[in-house]
Amino acid sequence: MISAGIVGGTGYTGVELLRILVLHPDVDVRVVTSRSDAEQRVDLAYPSLRGLCNLLFTQPDIEALADCDVVFFATPNGAAMLMAEQLLQRNVKIIDLSADFRIKDAKEWSKWYGMEHACPELIKEAVYGLPEVNREAIKQASLLACPGCYPTAVQLGFLPLIESNLIDLSYLIADVKSGVSGAGRKAQVSALMSETGESFKAYAVNGHRHLPEITQGLEIAAKQSVGLTFVPHLTPMIRGIHATLYGKITGNISQVQSLYEQKYQNEFFVDVLPQGQHPDTRNVRGSNNCQIAIHQPQGGDTLVILSVIDNLVKGAAGQAVQNMNIMLGLDEKTALKTVALYP
Amino acid sequence: MISAGIVGGTGYTGVELLRILVLHPDVDVRVVTSRSDAEQRVDLAYPSLRGLCNLLFTQPDIEALADCDVVFFATPNGAAMLMAEQLLQRNVKIIDLSADFRIKDAKEWSKWYGMEHACPELIKEAVYGLPEVNREAIKQASLLACPGCYPTAVQLGFLPLIESNLIDLSYLIADVKSGVSGAGRKAQVSALMSETGESFKAYAVNGHRHLPEITQGLEIAAKQSVGLTFVPHLTPMIRGIHATLYGKITGNISQVQSLYEQKYQNEFFVDVLPQGQHPDTRNVRGSNNCQIAIHQPQGGDTLVILSVIDNLVKGAAGQAVQNMNIMLGLDEKTALKTVALYP
Amino acid sequence: MISAGIVGGTGYTGVELLRILVLHPDVDVRVVTSRSDAEQRVDLAYPSLRGLCNLLFTQPDIEALADCDVVFFATPNGAAMLMAEQLLQRNVKIIDLSADFRIKDAKEWSKWYGMEHACPELIKEAVYGLPEVNREAIKQASLLACPGCYPTAVQLGFLPLIESNLIDLSYLIADVKSGVSGAGRKAQVSALMSETGESFKAYAVNGHRHLPEITQGLEIAAKQSVGLTFVPHLTPMIRGIHATLYGKITGNISQVQSLYEQKYQNEFFVDVLPQGQHPDTRNVRGSNNCQIAIHQPQGGDTLVILSVIDNLVKGAAGQAVQNMNIMLGLDEKTALKTVALYP
Amino acid sequence: MISAGIVGGTGYTGVELLRILVLHPDVDVRVVTSRSDAEQRVDLAYPSLRGLCNLLFTQPDIEALADCDVVFFATPNGAAMLMAEQLLQRNVKIIDLSADFRIKDAKEWSKWYGMEHACPELIKEAVYGLPEVNREAIKQASLLACPGCYPTAVQLGFLPLIESNLIDLSYLIADVKSGVSGAGRKAQVSALMSETGESFKAYAVNGHRHLPEITQGLEIAAKQSVGLTFVPHLTPMIRGIHATLYGKITGNISQVQSLYEQKYQNEFFVDVLPQGQHPDTRNVRGSNNCQIAIHQPQGGDTLVILSVIDNLVKGAAGQAVQNMNIMLGLDEKTALKTVALYP
Repeated sequence: MISAGIVGGTGYTGVELLRILVLHPDVDVRVVTSRSDAEQRVDLAYPSLRGLCNLLFTQPDIEALADCDVVFFATPNGAAMLMAEQLLQRNVKIIDLSADFRIKDAKEWSKWYGMEHACPELIKEAVYGLPEVNREAIKQASLLACPGCYPTAVQLGFLPLIESNLIDLSYLIADVKSGVSGAGRKAQVSALMSETGESFKAYAVNGHRHLPEITQGLEIAAKQSVGLTFVPHLTPMIRGIHATLYGKITGNISQVQSLYEQKYQNEFFVDVLPQGQHPDTRNVRGSNNCQIAIHQPQGGDTLVILSVIDNLVKGAAGQAVQNMNIMLGLDEKTALKTVALYP
Repeated sequence: MISAGIVGGTGYTGVELLRILVLHPDVDVRVVTSRSDAEQRVDLAYPSLRGLCNLLFTQPDIEALADCDVVFFATPNGAAMLMAEQLLQRNVKIIDLSADFRIKDAKEWSKWYGMEHACPELIKEAVYGLPEVNREAIKQASLLACPGCYPTAVQLGFLPLIESNLIDLSYLIADVKSGVSGAGRKAQVSALMSETGESFKAYAVNGHRHLPEITQGLEIAAKQSVGLTFVPHLTPMIRGIHATLYGKITGNISQVQSLYEQKYQNEFFVDVLPQGQHPDTRNVRGSNNCQIAIHQPQGGDTLVILSVIDNLVKGAAGQAVQNMNIMLGLDEKTALKTVALYP
Repeated sequence: MISAGIVGGTGYTGVELLRILVLHPDVDVRVVTSRSDAEQRVDLAYPSLRGLCNLLFTQPDIEALADCDVVFFATPNGAAMLMAEQLLQRNVKIIDLSADFRIKDAKEWSKWYGMEHACPELIKEAVYGLPEVNREAIKQASLLACPGCYPTAVQLGFLPLIESNLIDLSYLIADVKSGVSGAGRKAQVSALMSETGESFKAYAVNGHRHLPEITQGLEIAAKQSVGLTFVPHLTPMIRGIHATLYGKITGNISQVQSLYEQKYQNEFFVDVLPQGQHPDTRNVRGSNNCQIAIHQPQGGDTLVILSVIDNLVKGAAGQAVQNMNIMLGLDEKTALKTVALYP
Repeated sequence: MISAGIVGGTGYTGVELLRILVLHPDVDVRVVTSRSDAEQRVDLAYPSLRGLCNLLFTQPDIEALADCDVVFFATPNGAAMLMAEQLLQRNVKIIDLSADFRIKDAKEWSKWYGMEHACPELIKEAVYGLPEVNREAIKQASLLACPGCYPTAVQLGFLPLIESNLIDLSYLIADVKSGVSGAGRKAQVSALMSETGESFKAYAVNGHRHLPEITQGLEIAAKQSVGLTFVPHLTPMIRGIHATLYGKITGNISQVQSLYEQKYQNEFFVDVLPQGQHPDTRNVRGSNNCQIAIHQPQGGDTLVILSVIDNLVKGAAGQAVQNMNIMLGLDEKTALKTVALYP
């Protein structure tokens, strides 16, 4: 039995980790930390877990966490980097759902996240946890950086096209829509139901923190620089990301449907829809799946790729567990073979 | 391996049965019928099932269904009663999610459902599938009538109080709120998002079909007639039922919290919340759980019981599978031990 | 032209007052205060007002407010009572949308609102601003206490019945459902879309601040004490209150429909629906209307009254403007004759 | 007093016309037709209109309509073209909210709308009712073709840029999101709340009927052909359209903010937000406004234009009334000077 700890258990990614892990047959969650709710029962804060979780929240404590085989950080940015070194020295595997180890260039990271990096030397060691790209490296990883939600949807959608060099890499557009749980579980006026319900808007058009992460991933695949415009939007639902991706065709795209199907044929969690379909975020709600469709409107010179995930599952906690399964040599699908909650 | 069939696979209770059964370790769904979608792949209509269901919808056919060990009817009212006798003769166990066998009095049934009953002699044989009340009978049942969604939430909330005779049985009030999936998956203006979103209303105040079913269940428990006012409401969400139940105190209710806790202490799917809490439908969304809380506002003469379920799970497909597990001698929790999808 | 000031312009009742008053032909809003947003343009915070409001938010200042003919308090509880006396001395009419002057008994007020009342001697002078009950007194009022949202819906629904003594006054039940804008525009986890969307719950069952206000109003009408159970619920929509009211019939209720119709026949904003209909909150969304329907399920001994309002209009800002119109001798409907936003 | 008729009064654009027109000081709605609801009171179907509309729905009848000064068609496509000629001969002004007269090329129209045009000779006479482009022609029009909802948002957003020739006209992208009221008020599974709530999807990526209309408008402005990719999406809200428009910069765009401000400086209903802001559909909900913002992410080579409207107001009924006001010589803002319903 693998013992696991969760640092930062009161946010949405934390409670989503619990939702998945309490039913994982090989994992025993031993520690869930929360500064604000320490000493309180976890299922008092989250009655959905009643009957399946008898833990109390505790103050974050290195000793207690060091007894775990694996520790998840579901913390705000800047917290994991303060504890990572100590835990790695104690042979604890780390899966960080925050952004601390996603960007390889520490200066770039500082620019976007507004703080100095506490352990830039560890960044190199961290493996970027997108299994469809990095599975072999993940198997060996001790420090895993889980991708952001937008970057997961956008990269899975763009990668086959970028690797095959069929579109103009200097002019990519990612118009992406997210449910409001992406804003996290913190008291803020802008995420109130009265502000976000029944309304739709773009935000951070001039630069969102996920932009350098996406660009980094696409450039690794392209083996050259890419020009990306990324516009995030807030959509009045709780869960789900829908990426609408645009690329200008430069090569022969007659085989693009089969290109995607081949790329993902052995990926349980990435599903290329039959030609002509449109993915719907409800069809991946609560599941670790990504559904993708490829369109070429009116046979013109633009490819439109549609890619949907649940931001809290494949975009966060589900992908973290998928990575854990890979890191620990378990069946990658363990505890993740579920059906989306439709309707 | 148990072979199962689903008649009426394109409604919400049908697809919800599939969501649960495709992950049931002991069940193999062999037949899913649909007149409208026959010959089409099930996962074309429901892409949430891609990768987990390779079936085609078929025309309803007694021979194909007779080869199953158990057949679920997720059909409109009036369909199960036309096929039940033939299947029972072939030793197929029947689990009917429609209302055909819920009401013991065929005349009463006809009055509310607007048609003659096709096999009134079978009604007597049917077992009402509320496991918390009827578990022993369910074990022996061949023809099981699954309770309606409102009746499940209201009965589980009222029963301990009624059995213990602590409230005025002549004046019970059930003010119940349902998500719109309760209206089913059929083309109708009244269930459009533009009609039901961002709005709240009562409906059928002068008489809803679930009234006689609830009354029947309460009267069996009370061993006398009861006076019930039942007001259903439509609330702008997809899943969930919240019953707010009112009873006038007539006895000593000092132990009412422990009365509920004892009644349900061995019931995995019924959870009595600690004193002072309020259940929230999101905490049972997608799960087979019922959460109940008991309040006595200002120490006055009214008891307020709050009872929540997911109308499509404990109120329909989940309870149907729970009944199947009992009928077939399986662990009652098989395929139903899940965590609600919060947020 | 009447000059008006708004104290506390950044909450939902404040911005709703602006929505109505910028189109009021006889009113010129001169002052809008906000401690947090002072010196900022009002339409920067509320782009819906662009083109119709050129004001800046200012710090609350007695001198500036004293130059107004009428001042609205859209502040948290406890603020209006600190400024009321000074403004009244300067002959400014006060319309308080908070709870400071609603409860006639200062001790009772303190118990529910958790603070000492700053000017208990003024409470007596304050007129409770439910025009359908107090129109004559409102005409003469200098200090007006606007009713709460729940109290407006419940009182308008219950009053004709209570005045006519047809139900058991010792056992009244008000099961009321509110949209989340009732929780106000402040940063709090419990009002996030991820917490309140797609979910339904009761809250404060053991005692909500609006209970003494409702009871006070019903007892004045009944001319005796009443026994009321009031259970508020949070429903996943932004605007709207739906009160479902239950009373046990004691008299001859054959004329109850016409009783309601007569009571409200000259009330522009209270509309008794034809027999058999159910009001829907969307049909009053954004309007100052209250729609009411009367049902007697199965001809039994319980009356069910359904009463709907928009909590921010008839339940707050609209009723405040209605009161202002009456106080200032204007046509009561000025700026309020609008059609609900359906769909 | 102008007498008006509405053909097709039971859809969302029909009832939205009534919402606006019953408060129009110069218009008297005399006829509202509906085949399905004929002889029924309008306010029975739409209780939001109670007290402000005493009409009955009638069967469509040329004689009754010919007595009106102006007739609105809020009908499905293909209905207005059957009655237009007769009404024009009787000197009735026609404002068609359907698509019958929007496309100048009758063959193109037939291709997208799947039927022969009944009066191709009238198409030429029809004026496309986008006041910000065609105001002078609208003043003289007898037959007015109201723009579609998507075309309104996209054209208002793109036009200043296209006229000034600052972007690559061969590669325009319009990623547009609509609320579900755009699907109309007809019984269809795909618009149920259980299907569209809490979910987001693209649809008709391979060709939506509004594509030729948008292209036609942009090409008139560009005085050359343009290459447009248009992807519509369904977003889980009732009202609102958000267009995110992408153009590749080819000229000097340093003045693009002031370019937009100048273009729309005299347009009451088109509002260019200050630099850096993002429009939100809630800020135009229920109003006839269009709000636009211009962004150049990271100073790169892509311009991003954000344009929001309420699809039922500026995208349908509000624009229709705006056109009527212009056609009849009234103040263009009459009955349309309202504030959006926020929150």
